[in-house]
Amino acid sequence: MGSDIDDLGKNDANYTALTPLWFLERAATVHPNRTSLVHGSWRYTWHHTYQRCRRFASALSNHSIGLGHTVHMARVQVAVIAPNIPALYEAHFGVPMSGAVLNTVNIRLNASVIAFLLGHSLASVLVVDQEFFSLTEEALKIWSKKSNNFKPPILIVIGDENCDPKGLRYALSKGAIEYENFLESGDPEYAWKPPKDEWQSIALGYTSGTTSSPKGVVLHHRGAYLMSLGGALVWGMNEGAVYLWTLPMFHCNGWCYTWTLAALCGTNICLRQVTAKAVYAAIAKYKVTHFCAAPIVLNTLINAPPEETILPLPHVVHVNTAGAAPPPSVISAMSERGFRVIHTYGLSETYGPSTICAWKPEWDSLPPEKKAKLHARQGVRYISLEGLDVMNTKTMQPVPADGTTIGEIVMRGNGVMKGYLKNPKANEEAFANGWFHSGDLAVKHSDGYIEIKDRSKDIIISGAENISSVEIENALYSHPAILEASVVARPDEKWGESPCAFVTLKNGVLDSGNEQNLAEDIIKFCRTKMPSYWVPKSVVFGTLPKTSTGKIQKNLLRAKAKEMGPVKIISKL
Amino acid sequence: MGSDIDDLGKNDANYTALTPLWFLERAATVHPNRTSLVHGSWRYTWHHTYQRCRRFASALSNHSIGLGHTVHMARVQVAVIAPNIPALYEAHFGVPMSGAVLNTVNIRLNASVIAFLLGHSLASVLVVDQEFFSLTEEALKIWSKKSNNFKPPILIVIGDENCDPKGLRYALSKGAIEYENFLESGDPEYAWKPPKDEWQSIALGYTSGTTSSPKGVVLHHRGAYLMSLGGALVWGMNEGAVYLWTLPMFHCNGWCYTWTLAALCGTNICLRQVTAKAVYAAIAKYKVTHFCAAPIVLNTLINAPPEETILPLPHVVHVNTAGAAPPPSVISAMSERGFRVIHTYGLSETYGPSTICAWKPEWDSLPPEKKAKLHARQGVRYISLEGLDVMNTKTMQPVPADGTTIGEIVMRGNGVMKGYLKNPKANEEAFANGWFHSGDLAVKHSDGYIEIKDRSKDIIISGAENISSVEIENALYSHPAILEASVVARPDEKWGESPCAFVTLKNGVLDSGNEQNLAEDIIKFCRTKMPSYWVPKSVVFGTLPKTSTGKIQKNLLRAKAKEMGPVKIISKL
Repeated sequence: MGSDIDDLGKNDANYTALTPLWFLERAATVHPNRTSLVHGSWRYTWHHTYQRCRRFASALSNHSIGLGHTVHMARVQVAVIAPNIPALYEAHFGVPMSGAVLNTVNIRLNASVIAFLLGHSLASVLVVDQEFFSLTEEALKIWSKKSNNFKPPILIVIGDENCDPKGLRYALSKGAIEYENFLESGDPEYAWKPPKDEWQSIALGYTSGTTSSPKGVVLHHRGAYLMSLGGALVWGMNEGAVYLWTLPMFHCNGWCYTWTLAALCGTNICLRQVTAKAVYAAIAKYKVTHFCAAPIVLNTLINAPPEETILPLPHVVHVNTAGAAPPPSVISAMSERGFRVIHTYGLSETYGPSTICAWKPEWDSLPPEKKAKLHARQGVRYISLEGLDVMNTKTMQPVPADGTTIGEIVMRGNGVMKGYLKNPKANEEAFANGWFHSGDLAVKHSDGYIEIKDRSKDIIISGAENISSVEIENALYSHPAILEASVVARPDEKWGESPCAFVTLKNGVLDSGNEQNLAEDIIKFCRTKMPSYWVPKSVVFGTLPKTSTGKIQKNLLRAKAKEMGPVKIISKL
Repeated sequence: MGSDIDDLGKNDANYTALTPLWFLERAATVHPNRTSLVHGSWRYTWHHTYQRCRRFASALSNHSIGLGHTVHMARVQVAVIAPNIPALYEAHFGVPMSGAVLNTVNIRLNASVIAFLLGHSLASVLVVDQEFFSLTEEALKIWSKKSNNFKPPILIVIGDENCDPKGLRYALSKGAIEYENFLESGDPEYAWKPPKDEWQSIALGYTSGTTSSPKGVVLHHRGAYLMSLGGALVWGMNEGAVYLWTLPMFHCNGWCYTWTLAALCGTNICLRQVTAKAVYAAIAKYKVTHFCAAPIVLNTLINAPPEETILPLPHVVHVNTAGAAPPPSVISAMSERGFRVIHTYGLSETYGPSTICAWKPEWDSLPPEKKAKLHARQGVRYISLEGLDVMNTKTMQPVPADGTTIGEIVMRGNGVMKGYLKNPKANEEAFANGWFHSGDLAVKHSDGYIEIKDRSKDIIISGAENISSVEIENALYSHPAILEASVVARPDEKWGESPCAFVTLKNGVLDSGNEQNLAEDIIKFCRTKMPSYWVPKSVVFGTLPKTSTGKIQKNLLRAKAKEMGPVKIISKL
């Protein structure tokens, strides 16, 4: 009597493993004729996309790829090396439908890094955009030479009418299978199966590895399901959204929006190359409602020549920005242009963004500058991330919510990765004390919102004081002549380290005669904005090196600052 | 080597049991000062609500209620007998935060049914609205007399300034603890714990039991989490929604919108009693954006005297209707009044609605009648329900998508209950062959949308032909004199059964002299709308008996039709 309220067990009727794969089946049922994907003159419906993904899974399975086909007990990786084209979108469903794990490769990596990734993940199939075939060939050569685990993968090449056909012909001559032929060989009615266990891996993505070897972040079906819905919920992104692929899909699976778009039966607009002109043109042509972009891309949109823009915007466009802390000036300039910006933050290890600076209506009436400053904070956790805090990781105690005490951002919950592939040491560090350690340093404000002050490795320690490079950058971005800015530590004879600013100017390169004047002007400008010990002691003009995702490569700038030698006690800029 | 892509295990950082309880913690963090609940002159913020719920859990725990405190291995039930007031909302978080299971009791049941439920679930705590205290006392008396498992539960009474204070005084004189005092005794900072296992039960709700004893539907944390987010996603219900509680929270936990509102940091507007005037007044006063209601409530809104309405609506109001198949005429009348209606369908066993008639833009240009007809279908599955079909349950084969072959609606996935409490036989039937059997009969249209034709038990079998009572009702609703209609089987000498129509007129009761004329007119009207064997052979005027959730009680009408005796071969109405 009364013994069974918790005894009611799982059965086929009341339990299914969570997986985003069901989203596609639903989209194809509910809106079979709605446009799913547009790429140049290509247009697919959700019916097509579902059929193509099932063909993809079926063809992989015909090649003995997928669940049940194991190599050393590991489920087989399918690596895709492609920009934002339909095949990469299709891989997000087709590959896991076969039971295999999708490894999306950053196309801006060089051959030796790609060789490292392929050798590390033991990719069995490579699906390569024709433009990146030679790069892939080179990577395979390096892998085969350097490693004794090399086994030639199946090569599939994706043709694109927007590219020079030579590339495709070359790949075919080398024995690669054409992607469309590969799909043709598969069954459009293939009876794919959801994973037995939602903890099963769905995707593998490598961190940029600016400080060490790239680490393979492994994600599972459960997390992909929850985070792709979470990303819609925090953004208020509804059924039928028209989404522009400015953010690379190879970056955290497009922050999970690949799967979200199927859940919302929306429309994907592909973009091979992101330029301000192409973004504005796509917004106008396809009535784009949403896109994601790193702050650096927003900066490009803001500073585009008027003839490339379509301002004022003909309809509301929602922008989700993350990938680096956006300077408040970038947020406010976007808002002025009519974009509705949400600011989110996360890492590859958290399926992309997992915090949002949730807007409060009471901020509406604040002056623009104050608004932008509040909005530039990293905010609060996603609905689908259960824990977020800023901690002193020595004591594992939360920092006081005083807006000044710096600690490390830690997270926990279903929005955190399974772990790093074949890297027990990194896993131990990342998951120490039951929290995921982000490596980002932040403060917690009195309203509970967190704000990043720096990556642990980017903080500048000058005379034993911590200086946030981000705060200096935010100030620099408000200087009228500066397009982009990045601040790193430069060795300093007196202080140990001092801030060194690298800046790109709006009007391009200056005459060397003017550099000195402008540098002095910038330093003077900084004095009005920050404590004197924060003021950069050196200013360097030029183009900033960036990763494929638009992140400025501070490691390279740090190396450059080191090369410049220490700031001398007696020196003067 | 390559062996660990699926070996990466769960740990405290990367895995948490899914539960809607986190939504409340998040709402209190993100929008502590936003209004969470309004009831008359009472107003709470999310900060208050979180504190009150933690007090609730803490106070329960002080009374040895909750997880760890077990009776015969069952976790303890807390039953709430109350209309839509703040305490019932708070119970949705406070009770499971203590580890106990929430049993919301339908306040329109009589004492003997309530006695059955309490005895069946072995409720240890009763939280009772002052207006329902006497009813509860009576139920306890019956329980104590009828059963040998009676153990007096802890009695907590909820005062309400909107009620006669006598009721509260009486309850206190009988030793009940006042709800506010009970909360006072709890710790507002109580360190509640999420469930260890997301399969843990969160809520228990009894079916109306029109055909048999009420069955106790047990729901779990995982399902509550997924369905409450699913309900937001399919409705396009975003952050900050203002939700009016027309639908009773005791009905499938308010279709999970109790928890959804916390996820969205929205505002709950309570309503003790649902009248057209009160609904329209609340819409105007609180800028209500969303509410749910059975079609019968919509009918009341449509037919309200103009002075009770606020038409045209001052802002967009979204309505989710379910609970019975809405006649197309009701949907179109609501749309004409400016409400944006979504039509959903589900059962207590599926956490409330789990299918939606997803709107297609291509329907926009259809004539209103055609539009309403398409929209009156039950549609497609929620994002959070993984399987939906119409099957011949003898063969377990899907019916053809021809819009005419009738089968049973079956469902599977995370939106299906754990099972019925202490009812193995019912569980076996409900989950036969790996699908949940809804007991609803439907067809599948060529576009994959399902449409209910009847409850299995409501179908009329006349001369071996199935007649859908719903289709006849839909026709009756379009008759200008009819406010409400319900059709059931009446014994028939010639045909076995024939349709008998019970109708309520818009202008109230007729003179008996006019009844005959109107009945003939209605029958004539039906002849123009349906095959002749569908046309009701009898028409009965009067008020229709309804359940607390606005469902017409066909079992009572069937009994009445039976009492009327068989339609005679020679009879004429």
